[in-house]
Parts: sequence; C-alpha cells; structure tokens
Amino acid sequence: MARMKPRVHNFCAGPGTLPPEVLEALREDLADWRGLGRSVLEVSHRTEAYRALHDRAVANLRALLGLGPDYEILLLQGGASGQFAMLPCNFLRAGRSADYVVRGYWGEKAARQAARVGAVRTLREPGGWTPGAAYAHVTTNETIAGTRLPEAFPPPEAPLCADMSSDILAAPRDYRRYALLYAGAQKNLGVAGLAVVAAHHDFLSRARRDLPAVFSYLEHARAGGLYHTPNAFAVDALAHVTAWLLREGPQAVWERNARKAERLYAELDASAFWRPLAPKAERSLTNVTFRLPTAELEEAFLAQAEAEGLVALRGHRALGGIRASLYNALPEAAVEALVAFMRRFAREHA
Amino acid sequence: MARMKPRVHNFCAGPGTLPPEVLEALREDLADWRGLGRSVLEVSHRTEAYRALHDRAVANLRALLGLGPDYEILLLQGGASGQFAMLPCNFLRAGRSADYVVRGYWGEKAARQAARVGAVRTLREPGGWTPGAAYAHVTTNETIAGTRLPEAFPPPEAPLCADMSSDILAAPRDYRRYALLYAGAQKNLGVAGLAVVAAHHDFLSRARRDLPAVFSYLEHARAGGLYHTPNAFAVDALAHVTAWLLREGPQAVWERNARKAERLYAELDASAFWRPLAPKAERSLTNVTFRLPTAELEEAFLAQAEAEGLVALRGHRALGGIRASLYNALPEAAVEALVAFMRRFAREHA
Repeated sequence: MARMKPRVHNFCAGPGTLPPEVLEALREDLADWRGLGRSVLEVSHRTEAYRALHDRAVANLRALLGLGPDYEILLLQGGASGQFAMLPCNFLRAGRSADYVVRGYWGEKAARQAARVGAVRTLREPGGWTPGAAYAHVTTNETIAGTRLPEAFPPPEAPLCADMSSDILAAPRDYRRYALLYAGAQKNLGVAGLAVVAAHHDFLSRARRDLPAVFSYLEHARAGGLYHTPNAFAVDALAHVTAWLLREGPQAVWERNARKAERLYAELDASAFWRPLAPKAERSLTNVTFRLPTAELEEAFLAQAEAEGLVALRGHRALGGIRASLYNALPEAAVEALVAFMRRFAREHA
Repeated sequence: MARMKPRVHNFCAGPGTLPPEVLEALREDLADWRGLGRSVLEVSHRTEAYRALHDRAVANLRALLGLGPDYEILLLQGGASGQFAMLPCNFLRAGRSADYVVRGYWGEKAARQAARVGAVRTLREPGGWTPGAAYAHVTTNETIAGTRLPEAFPPPEAPLCADMSSDILAAPRDYRRYALLYAGAQKNLGVAGLAVVAAHHDFLSRARRDLPAVFSYLEHARAGGLYHTPNAFAVDALAHVTAWLLREGPQAVWERNARKAERLYAELDASAFWRPLAPKAERSLTNVTFRLPTAELEEAFLAQAEAEGLVALRGHRALGGIRASLYNALPEAAVEALVAFMRRFAREHA
C-alpha cells in the first residue's frame, strides 16, 4: 500500500469530493466486507448481506429526504442523464405534453431529451403551467451557471418532477412537494454510476407498463431495486455517505453549507476584482461561479491555486471563468483556504 | 485499516471473484489516484487523467478481443440487461424482425425484452435464420444451466449479435464474427455497473438516430464514451483487470480455464454420486452445474463447503443444485480445493 499523498482541496463540480472517512470505509470494504472473506464487489446481490446494504442505503436516504412509505425510492444505474430519458419514457404518453422549466444548461438538456420521446413545452420560469400536462419538470440547481431555482414558485397542477443532482440534501427542502425527484449520486450523495429516484406511488402508478424492463420504474420497484445486478460499489458508497450525513446531523451539514457559500460570496462581493456570475437572488449554494478581470488572470489564478492544492476550480467550458463547488463533503477549511488564496491573489494582481 | 480476513474461494456466478492484485490496486486508487491527492472517484471525467484511463481500458480490451479500428468499443453504464433493451431500440425498426436463439434463461430474457420493442422470432438452435432479419442474437453461455453455445454454427446473413457476459475472454474466440457483442463486466472483466459493447462500424451506422441520447449507441460513440459522467470506478476496475489479463497472457489464462473446467468435469464424471446437469457437448467452461442424490445432501454439501471457505456454490433458484463458476480470476487452487472437498464429501456420503 503506497503512502497516502496529502489530500487536496477538491472543488470539482462532479464527481465531487468525498468525506475521508467514507473513502477509508470503502477501502476496507474492498479488503474484506463484513467478515465475508471477500470484497463488497464480489458478493451476489441475492445474498442477505447485499439486501441489508441496499435496505440500509434506502432507509438512510428516506430519513434524510423526510419521505414516508408513500414514496418509492429506487437506486438505478446511470445518472441524471439516464433519468432525462426514463422520465418521459415512463410518463409522457402520446397526446400529452410535459412542461419543462429551462433556466440553464441542464434544464435544457432534460427538455431536449424529453422532446425525443414526446411533446414538450419549455417555460423560462416556473409558473404559467400547461393545464393537463403529464408532469412539470424543474432543475433545482444549474451547476454550470451556478444558479439555483428559488423554492417559492407557484406549484403546477400536474405532478412536479425535478432534477436535484447538484443540490439534493445540501439545504433544507420539502421533498414532499415533488411527485418524482432524481439525482446523480456523484455530487452530494456518493459516486458516479448511480441515480437516486424518489417517486410518489400515486404518480408511479401512472407509468407505462409496456417498456423494456430496464427503462421501467414500475419493474424496478416491483423487483425491490434488484431487477438486474446492481452497482454494488455505488450503493455501498451511498450507504456510507448517507450514514455520514446522519452522523454529522443534516442540520449541521446545512448550516455548514450555508456558511461556506456566504463566506465565498462575501469575498466575491468585497472587491470589484471578482465578478460573480449569478444574479444575487439566484446564487447557488453549491456551485459558485465568477470571473476575473481578464482571461490571462484566470489562467494564472487556476495555475497558482492548483499549485497550492486548491484543485478543479476551472469553470465549465461553456461559460469559462472559475467555479468552486461546495458540496456537502467539502470541508469549511477548503473554503477558508480558497478565500485566503483569493485575498493574496487579488492583492498581487489588482 | 482492519486486518484482512483470509480470502475465501469464491465460486459466485456474478459478481465474480477478482484477482487480489486488482483489489489491491483499486484500494490504492481510493487512497490517492496517480499522485493527484484525491481518489479515482473524485476526478472529473473531463480531465486528461480520466481520458487516459478510459483509453487504456478500451485499448486493453481491443487487444484482448483482437478487434481492429473497424470496431467501436463502448463502456456503458448498466449491464447486459440494459443491452437487452438498447440493442432492439437501436436496430429493430418497425417492419423488421430479429432472430433470437433461445437455449436458456438469459437468451429468453433477451428475446422477451426485445419483443417489447419490436418483432422477434425465437429459434431453438442457431440456423434456419430469417432472411432479411434486422439482426440475429445469440447467448454464448447460459450461466444458469451451465451450457455453452458451440461455436461452429452456420452464420446468419443478418448481423450477428451476442450476449457474452459469462464467457467473454474465457477462451479463444473469433470476435470478428460478431457485428455487435456485449457483456456485463462483473463476471470476467471487472465489477458490476458497466457493460462492454463492441460494435462494427458498418452495423453501428444503421442504428436509429432519434433515440434519447443515453439509449443511443451512436451518441455514445460520438461522445467518445463520455456522453455522460462515466462509472469511473468500474472503468478503473476494467483497466486493472484487462491489464492483469495481458500480464498473465490470454493464452495462459485460457489454458488455465480449460484445465479448471476439465478437472471439475472429470471429477463429476468419475462417480455416479455426482449428477452433472449440462449435456456433454454443451458443457460450459465457466459455470459448472450439478446435483447430488438428494436435496438434503445438497444442503449439507453447501453448508460444509461454506464452512471450509468454498463459497457461493448454490445453484440458481430456477434450477437448484450446485453451481461452481470458474471465471478468469478464479485460481486453479480454488478448483483443487473444491475437488478435494468433493472427494471427501462423496466418501462420507456415498
């Protein structure tokens, strides 16, 4: 076993940083899982040990989301992009249409994929919903622009669905407003290769029943999440991350997240050197985007940050600039280090 | 870090056992990946480091399969069950039908899923193909019954497609006979959560272009395998397993696999106590199925084997009895230990 290098402060927008104790637990599960003399990767999903792991991950998630037994929680392979297709395949029948609120890259991507399946109406803001729509879809946080959807929007009559990949469990939220919500696990919940889906049974019961099984929410629900061989490693990571969130206390995590974002936005607002990109009322809690006075300064900023162990700060290629992602597992110390670096950098280059 | 328990001999039909050195490499990659100060789970798939990992896994696989640049190799999330749906979605257009050879559980499952998409004709044996079929599909090895499809069958005129989940790279094979082949990675190639697909460009070019992107082979190919956030851990496992296969030498692995199967079948044939289930001409190289004289003896066999560190030998619930899976990573010593145990058990209970 090689000696561990010092860990960097990882601001990656996804896959995101993980709690060190989760990584350590995963490493142990690759050596010997639960005293079974083999790793978690080598155990049949038809065993009691695996079933218990799956149930633990789902129970943790249910507790954190505050959802009762009227919701089905599914752990599906793939990520949010898979759900962009699965959602309309299951609910967007011929002769109906769905409302998609498009306020950024991911909302647009979701709408575009749904339009390959059926009729889609895009809205710039939530409201003015189409009567009789099959469902309405929102993206709660736009990772690239660094904007969040303010929660207090007029609810649609149709079942409300949401992509919450980049801010699920990052702040308090009433998840029961949603008929179906989904999130790729690799930002706030664990590792890539898994989408978490929570769906109210009333909505679920409207799903199409003639789809190939792997695309069918109902088939996955009927099989208790084991329609096909699950991504056991990602489920194990989800179980560890959700257990960590419960140990830390969701309230404490949310307060820490709020402090992290406030600290960084305050720094951005304190000097004209920094040019935060999101409108103030829509600033994301999890993805903070900003530019510097010139592209050259941005390159210098990124290179110097990297050299100081502040990594993955480059903005998405569609937008440029800087992006710092502050997911649940990013410690406050990382934000402190970033702010200290920013002060030095601004002093040297302003 | 907990002390490692002694490893069991793991005959699991899937997810299968992994080479200990691959597990050790994966554990290192969870501590610090390539000196980046973070794990392989926390690195963006848009980095050069990840691109190099993906390319290495694909290059290893291409070399092992003996496929040239006329084949696209895709690493897709999910497993074979996902491909049961994707294959017909991409190629089974209205007005066409596909031939499915059904010789067991998995072939039937593939055919049933395809029938949800379009017209399917099932054949009991390869041959008597339908003229003008969109494609023909075979399952090269039936994991549950423990039967393999003999290779020397009359080829269809239509493009030949195959599910090779349970015997890919287990023996020499001319993979260029196939227009498209796929395999869940968790038996012979790595861990659950990844399907390997190799498709000839001529066939690929006939795929539908109006599917939701995540279901579209062409979109995945166009995106160079990075249409959406990949299951980086499973790709890392694939890179390590394929590197291990190349180090061991495919020929040596195939010879070892042949010795493992011969050894176990010879033992089954040596005494009437054992009742091998597969017809001799179709015996699987990777899944050896047999029964004992009574169900009680089978339970005693399984319990005693488990106590001696020979695990996951229970046959599939559809068939009962015993199943020993002898995938690439199962060492010869495991088969030796199993045979020694079987001799003792037969002596005591015959």
